[in-house]
Amino acid sequence: MRENSSFAVPPDLKHHFLRTIDGRQIHVAEVGQGHPLIFVHGWPEFWKSWLPVVNFLKSNYRCIMPCLYGFGLSDKPDEIDSKIDADFHARDINFIAKKLCSNRPILIGHDVGSYVLQSVGHITPKNYSGLIFFNCPTASVGRDWVNYGHVNEIWYQSFHLTDLAQQLVGFNQNTIRLYIEYFLKHWSYNKSAFDLVLDDWVENFSQPNALIGGFSWYKSNNQKRIKTLQGDADMPLSKISTPSAILWGKHDPILKSDWGKFVEAHFDDVFVEYANNSGHFVHVEQPELAVKFINQNAQKWLM
Amino acid sequence: MRENSSFAVPPDLKHHFLRTIDGRQIHVAEVGQGHPLIFVHGWPEFWKSWLPVVNFLKSNYRCIMPCLYGFGLSDKPDEIDSKIDADFHARDINFIAKKLCSNRPILIGHDVGSYVLQSVGHITPKNYSGLIFFNCPTASVGRDWVNYGHVNEIWYQSFHLTDLAQQLVGFNQNTIRLYIEYFLKHWSYNKSAFDLVLDDWVENFSQPNALIGGFSWYKSNNQKRIKTLQGDADMPLSKISTPSAILWGKHDPILKSDWGKFVEAHFDDVFVEYANNSGHFVHVEQPELAVKFINQNAQKWLM
Repeated sequence: MRENSSFAVPPDLKHHFLRTIDGRQIHVAEVGQGHPLIFVHGWPEFWKSWLPVVNFLKSNYRCIMPCLYGFGLSDKPDEIDSKIDADFHARDINFIAKKLCSNRPILIGHDVGSYVLQSVGHITPKNYSGLIFFNCPTASVGRDWVNYGHVNEIWYQSFHLTDLAQQLVGFNQNTIRLYIEYFLKHWSYNKSAFDLVLDDWVENFSQPNALIGGFSWYKSNNQKRIKTLQGDADMPLSKISTPSAILWGKHDPILKSDWGKFVEAHFDDVFVEYANNSGHFVHVEQPELAVKFINQNAQKWLM
Repeated sequence: MRENSSFAVPPDLKHHFLRTIDGRQIHVAEVGQGHPLIFVHGWPEFWKSWLPVVNFLKSNYRCIMPCLYGFGLSDKPDEIDSKIDADFHARDINFIAKKLCSNRPILIGHDVGSYVLQSVGHITPKNYSGLIFFNCPTASVGRDWVNYGHVNEIWYQSFHLTDLAQQLVGFNQNTIRLYIEYFLKHWSYNKSAFDLVLDDWVENFSQPNALIGGFSWYKSNNQKRIKTLQGDADMPLSKISTPSAILWGKHDPILKSDWGKFVEAHFDDVFVEYANNSGHFVHVEQPELAVKFINQNAQKWLM
């Protein structure tokens, strides 16, 4: 990675390795001073995904970038695990916030992180000053997961449940590269967004159990997903009361920005905007826009 | 392959290479004497799939085993093709029948072949003495393609549309083996059914454009599939009038035997039976039962 790229690692960045009560080691990168922001990544990502926005934000905020259990530099399960769902990760985020922050952080997430933020919003709505989403799939999406050809976008969610996926994708570092690069490009509107860090991504997902760690999310979310896409999702009993804001990549091919129409049913106080030149990864594809969005909402919530 | 295995190639087997009017070369294996049976394979298969039943049937029938265009020893497209749908293959089957048979053959098919036989049954119902299916998915399956967790079985139909599939599966002969072996085992109830011929299968699908040839079926059937699984399939204007019989592997994980309940809406005259110790590949998993079923129905139809 080039020193001057948007993904440059700040020289004053610190690494924490926290130990959960059940003995798992969770990696958290941290840089900057100010009100805490906790960033929750998706698949196929890890803490470094946030650097393009963090390099702008670190002068005004304390930026806390965990690797979810199973990802990045955090511990990983030895085999595909079905218990690492959004509520599981939400408990880890609450643990990190309690351990590292004395005031109410803002949570920022997308993809897997969007599910985790919604879980946090239901479990501990008062512990956070606000929730910022870069895409936000809700239980209301229902049959839209499969209708109108969208079934052709979601195959990996099923593939990740198979032993074949571990064997075929994990055949060697070249096949890992083919697989990770495919999604980083396919889901991006700016196809070169990850070009400078592709080697870092391949190295990350070539670590022992790194594929299994990511695939475990799909296994763990499988039952909910099945119910959702056949239109039988359990709807939450109440809306999320934490103030929330969503900046959704207009061209996201997997979590469609059209699904922004569903979010009002899930939040008491939510603001939705669209990033016209982004796909799935607004924080990487349009980091300056993402930073402006975070700043605007944070200033409002922290007044 | 062992000489004495159920897949043994009969010494008197002949190979035809027919040239279609648009210049494609189609391979047809042939053995035996009697009324003609034309066997239409699925994915991931080719003419050799039928040997376990043909080794029994060749003493009483002329057994004609084409490789569909894109498969086996037939010509293959240079890139993934969206025009090789069931009607396309049906025209090829009609061409083969006209070229090689003077009386009305019985058609036998499964998987891709089941779609082709239904197309033939609509286009030229009078040209054949009967249709025998080893599984028979119809347009009536509808949302059952995705409901009740079945979405997790159909991922490959979407994956096959991507460039990634060609690159990842086709990375080398070992990845081709991983992929083909996965489906032969996962879809079989008798997990060792293809063990003796796995090398033949890997060699077959390692031929230039052999993966693309197979994937082209999924590309070509994609629009119909999308409409079907969202419950908007175009239903045929009339039922198939050719006498038909279906022997469906009870444990087929991909084309569920439960879907046998839908077939009466699609055939004037159809008999459905279930193979209790088979998955997807009745003709390989329980060849003696499959032979008995073919014999019984052929004798009735050819009286």
